[in-house]
Amino acid sequence: MTTHTIPTVDTVAWRDDAVRLIDQTLLPTEFTYIDCRTVEQVWEAIKSLRVRGAPAIGVAAAYGVVRAVWNNNAATSDALIKSLEKAADYLATSRPTAVNLFWALDRMRRVAREHVALAPDALKLRLLDEAVEIHEEDDRLCHAIGEHGATLIQDGDGVLTHCNAGGLATSGYGTALAVMFTAHAQGKRIHVYSDETRPLLQGARLTTWELMRAGIETTLICDSVAAQVMREGRIQRVVTGADRIAANGDSANKIGTYMLAVLAKAHGIPFYIAAPTSTLDMSLDNGGLIPIEERAAEEVTEGFGRRTAPEGVNVYAPAFDVTPAELITAIITEKGVHRPPYRKSFLA
Amino acid sequence: MTTHTIPTVDTVAWRDDAVRLIDQTLLPTEFTYIDCRTVEQVWEAIKSLRVRGAPAIGVAAAYGVVRAVWNNNAATSDALIKSLEKAADYLATSRPTAVNLFWALDRMRRVAREHVALAPDALKLRLLDEAVEIHEEDDRLCHAIGEHGATLIQDGDGVLTHCNAGGLATSGYGTALAVMFTAHAQGKRIHVYSDETRPLLQGARLTTWELMRAGIETTLICDSVAAQVMREGRIQRVVTGADRIAANGDSANKIGTYMLAVLAKAHGIPFYIAAPTSTLDMSLDNGGLIPIEERAAEEVTEGFGRRTAPEGVNVYAPAFDVTPAELITAIITEKGVHRPPYRKSFLA
Repeated sequence: MTTHTIPTVDTVAWRDDAVRLIDQTLLPTEFTYIDCRTVEQVWEAIKSLRVRGAPAIGVAAAYGVVRAVWNNNAATSDALIKSLEKAADYLATSRPTAVNLFWALDRMRRVAREHVALAPDALKLRLLDEAVEIHEEDDRLCHAIGEHGATLIQDGDGVLTHCNAGGLATSGYGTALAVMFTAHAQGKRIHVYSDETRPLLQGARLTTWELMRAGIETTLICDSVAAQVMREGRIQRVVTGADRIAANGDSANKIGTYMLAVLAKAHGIPFYIAAPTSTLDMSLDNGGLIPIEERAAEEVTEGFGRRTAPEGVNVYAPAFDVTPAELITAIITEKGVHRPPYRKSFLA
Repeated sequence: MTTHTIPTVDTVAWRDDAVRLIDQTLLPTEFTYIDCRTVEQVWEAIKSLRVRGAPAIGVAAAYGVVRAVWNNNAATSDALIKSLEKAADYLATSRPTAVNLFWALDRMRRVAREHVALAPDALKLRLLDEAVEIHEEDDRLCHAIGEHGATLIQDGDGVLTHCNAGGLATSGYGTALAVMFTAHAQGKRIHVYSDETRPLLQGARLTTWELMRAGIETTLICDSVAAQVMREGRIQRVVTGADRIAANGDSANKIGTYMLAVLAKAHGIPFYIAAPTSTLDMSLDNGGLIPIEERAAEEVTEGFGRRTAPEGVNVYAPAFDVTPAELITAIITEKGVHRPPYRKSFLA
């Protein structure tokens, strides 16, 4: 077997006292970093999808709260923590569905409170350490997800994915794409079909870019072609990421994921979700409780810098949908491959 | 019951010795007519989807062959017919899937041969009469389709459609949209969900425009939202057009139609095709024999004047898919509502 090295990307990083992000709205035609030096800039970057993908949003938010207090001259750590909590509350309003956002913010809040006895400057360094640890953990989790997930991929498989659950959605290696990167690195010949993923085309712009950089055979399709490539026998597995997973396994992910799950079932194709356990929200019994963000109509009607629908048209643009657990063949996390019933498997 | 008048459009017409078309690639932001005075211009207009929709292509092609011989100074009608046949062969290469194109061209060829005894100028007028008759027939067929189809629509229905099977796809009233126009004119309150229909957004650009002009409640969705609106209970029927229907009822239509049919079945929603009988191709036993046009990769990667995928990416862009008859609840033609088994119903 030949093996391959997979190029990763610095999706989010702490550089020169700033939160450095790749501006993903400009990919693939421009590769540009932006340095966020205010919490408002981080909020805007998350809201506008300059940084996106549940794990990457979590890392960006963790660095964001560090940035929020970094130049704060509070006399006491208690005052510093009040400032941090305000910033965390604010960042939590940027995207409602990705649970990793809240998870990372809660972790930063907790660590701050646990270290209130430190002097303010020492506390800042401790918070930065924690954000770096969230970042590095995510990287390790992605590699573990890749290893577990690759056991499900066979030589010669056609694999369909949706949106971008790659290095750009995480700390650099991906969740759903980690499965493909790892299978490819193991020498398995795979052909990945990437849904373009309307309205913001993360599949066309980001996933194909990552797969091509990794030297994986890639074909871009419109979202409406998914059923056809399944019918033509080109697809042996579907693998996507998730933004939030309820205790019963119901999984919220980019709009169109539920469609793929229904189509996969109709064509007898296994459907997998790949996500770190930080995406699990055991406080939600089922997916009906996951709040679904609606995006602005303009993302659909003026998505290409040119108006492509009549003025005043009514638009329904949910950002996510929820795939019921019964349509999910397995959920791949850093702990392994979970099979139904998921509630039992998650608790084990 | 209130009743409404539905505004129609002059999609294709013979004006000032030219084939006048609405340039549909510019809608909805610009409403512009183009006058085709050469057969090459008609070919280009069909190929580039300035005129599209199986019935409208048929009408445009019929006028196109008239235009091809209109200024021809052939001394004999036999020579004129040779010229007409050359033009018809050429126009037949513009789009491979829409059977109405071949049907209309064959009809013009046959009428020409039947009237070879006429003087060349008289033959030209006879050919124009035939093209006008094809045009007017199509208009009558659309109204009949609307009447038959509206019997399947109930007050309060949410109706999902794909691509544009409206007035812009026909001689002015539509096939799938004729069903909605007629139901609305009968006073039934309906809410139509229009898939945007990637890559060329005929749903976003054309269908919403027609529905809004007609005063029908309309919501635009991305193609990947179809499953979600079905799951949310917003959709009671799916109605689309067709570009070619095989003898067993298998129906080729815009890519994504097969997806809708699978999703409709999974959600227990009736799925209807509306098309004139000129769309039937009884020479094809089943849909596997329908040739499927592939479109250029740039329609996906640079659809709106801006590149949205990496250079060199592999793209699979079939223009159509084939929905198997077993997923089609009924096929609505000008003759009535056909139910399975379709072969028997079509022959009756």
